[in-house]
Amino acid sequence: MRVRGQPMRSIWLESDGRTVGIIDQTRLPHAFETLQLRTLEEAAHVIRSMRVRGAPLIGATAAYGLCLALLEDASDGALERAFTVLRATRPTAVNLLWALNEMRQMLAPLPSSERVAAAWRRAAEICDEDVAINRAIGEHGLKLLEAAWERKGRQGRLDVLTHCNAGWLATVDWGTALAPVYLAHDAGIPVHVWVDETRPRNQGASLTAWELGQHGVPHTVIADNVGGHLMQHGQVDLCIVGTDRTTSRGDVANKIGTYLKALAAKDNGVPFYVALPSPTIDWTLEDGVRDIPIEQRDGRELSEMTGRTASGEIVTVRVTPEDSAVANYGFDVTPARLVTALVTERGVCPASTEGLLSLFPERRAHR
Amino acid sequence: MRVRGQPMRSIWLESDGRTVGIIDQTRLPHAFETLQLRTLEEAAHVIRSMRVRGAPLIGATAAYGLCLALLEDASDGALERAFTVLRATRPTAVNLLWALNEMRQMLAPLPSSERVAAAWRRAAEICDEDVAINRAIGEHGLKLLEAAWERKGRQGRLDVLTHCNAGWLATVDWGTALAPVYLAHDAGIPVHVWVDETRPRNQGASLTAWELGQHGVPHTVIADNVGGHLMQHGQVDLCIVGTDRTTSRGDVANKIGTYLKALAAKDNGVPFYVALPSPTIDWTLEDGVRDIPIEQRDGRELSEMTGRTASGEIVTVRVTPEDSAVANYGFDVTPARLVTALVTERGVCPASTEGLLSLFPERRAHR
Repeated sequence: MRVRGQPMRSIWLESDGRTVGIIDQTRLPHAFETLQLRTLEEAAHVIRSMRVRGAPLIGATAAYGLCLALLEDASDGALERAFTVLRATRPTAVNLLWALNEMRQMLAPLPSSERVAAAWRRAAEICDEDVAINRAIGEHGLKLLEAAWERKGRQGRLDVLTHCNAGWLATVDWGTALAPVYLAHDAGIPVHVWVDETRPRNQGASLTAWELGQHGVPHTVIADNVGGHLMQHGQVDLCIVGTDRTTSRGDVANKIGTYLKALAAKDNGVPFYVALPSPTIDWTLEDGVRDIPIEQRDGRELSEMTGRTASGEIVTVRVTPEDSAVANYGFDVTPARLVTALVTERGVCPASTEGLLSLFPERRAHR
Repeated sequence: MRVRGQPMRSIWLESDGRTVGIIDQTRLPHAFETLQLRTLEEAAHVIRSMRVRGAPLIGATAAYGLCLALLEDASDGALERAFTVLRATRPTAVNLLWALNEMRQMLAPLPSSERVAAAWRRAAEICDEDVAINRAIGEHGLKLLEAAWERKGRQGRLDVLTHCNAGWLATVDWGTALAPVYLAHDAGIPVHVWVDETRPRNQGASLTAWELGQHGVPHTVIADNVGGHLMQHGQVDLCIVGTDRTTSRGDVANKIGTYLKALAAKDNGVPFYVALPSPTIDWTLEDGVRDIPIEQRDGRELSEMTGRTASGEIVTVRVTPEDSAVANYGFDVTPARLVTALVTERGVCPASTEGLLSLFPERRAHR
């Protein structure tokens, strides 16, 4: 996607061939700053401190972290140590473990003299594969947006509501839920995005709004409370969100509050789409509300807020009473019955076991 | 209710008999500061700047504002001028107009020499009437909480979810939605309140959490996104909220986001109660979604956030990108079909035309 008019990915290899560049996402939207990673420790730190976040981007950063570790020491012991350090940065991130396993499996059998070059190649492939998956999700999703635009008689604008950040900042490029939006915008459909602020981490207000703005997509930031009202008044043509984990019957775990928007969409006949790369499907689970454990996060994400003062300083302020308890649940589960369709890199399907198996027939054998 | 262990109302006549005291609600929860009003202009200013807010409290403050005006000049012209000034402070507030009309109707026929004493008397009555109404709402609502506590087998705690601030800070005392909660707490039911943060003005995080804390009611502040997840997991026994306007069939306009919680309550079989003093019923309207105009407020309520820094300073920070549009809808409408019951000063009734008429039979004649 574009930043200040220039094409950009969320992670890249610098021209020296041994330094990895990332955007410091904790500074957005107030400051655009890139960081250069030269060591394993630097890579682990940016994952741990959420300077990079989003499952696919975490996986890509971990893959590059292994490369940086091998630059210093390509021995078996060093490979294992790097694996362990990176694995521990975000214990629940599925893509992180997947990327690290991919790398280790390929690197371990190689003589240590060949590992560095092979690691750089595989890390770059992991990035390119993510871009290809998201681009495919975008193309399948684009058809849904085109159909909605046709249904609207190509009048006015196409109003899309999204929650949290499932954009290119969460991936290597394109994003998942936002990939169809970028393609529709680039194809000339006058798409406008209602951006849920997304409390408590404000990924909508800080990341989604920023990346849409940089790419030139018209958008409006709203409180998480607003979507239902907009849907009641015909101001949302469709919703599209990402997911962190999808069960085999199509229940989706996504940022807390997604379930409330899906209820409002159902109540008002607004299509509710979920975009996902197939690795987020957990074929071992069915009932998401019952079986997906919901992470409780640091209460300070809710009790404190970071922003920019009039003088340009970035400061953190407390917004709740000192002696009030806070609870911070990271995700909720939207039952498949509220999801109009799933958008994957292989196409669009109903949110159901049969729907998913129609796109992933190789899974039938496992059942 | 209590502040630092002492009984307190949200507005009072100081012991000099000519100064009105209020709490500066814009400083909560970070600082507890009271203000002394001595002139019409000071009264108008605290309404306009939302140092006092909440329909009943605005009405009471306006009534006292007229008293302060008459202290200086009790002529017909001064009475009219004061009426006009106060009327313009919050143009859409129904109770404001009601209180001003009450005062003017009673004062206008009196000789100017009798107006000041009569005004103080009527303003005090308006306050006491509000307290009596809320206390009655509390007693009727208490029965619902007692029933829920019985259904739970009197085990654990009684989990109540509320949105925005319909507590004593919004009224003269007791509050509407929180009156039953205070009575239940005082009666020894182990009630615990999930307090919706309530973006964008954060009335939950700043006012509801503070007033519950001061009165000693256990509570936990959550993001507005969380309630659905809690209800899916049986962690909410009932919801209770206030309303700014209720239609004759029981649709309720309340702070934006109320509708989303009502949908989640319906989806999970959780009772959803709305507490209201009867003056908020607009008997001329039926379909709230169609007919209640929704105020759009200053976007800075969303794009900026005020809190306290580590050094104790209260500062405002910007949280959205400089060039992103924001939209700020103040209210939404929850259709009667999602409301389990209405709680009024006359009792509890179904959210329907018949339900309301059963409590307010005198309205049948008008239909």
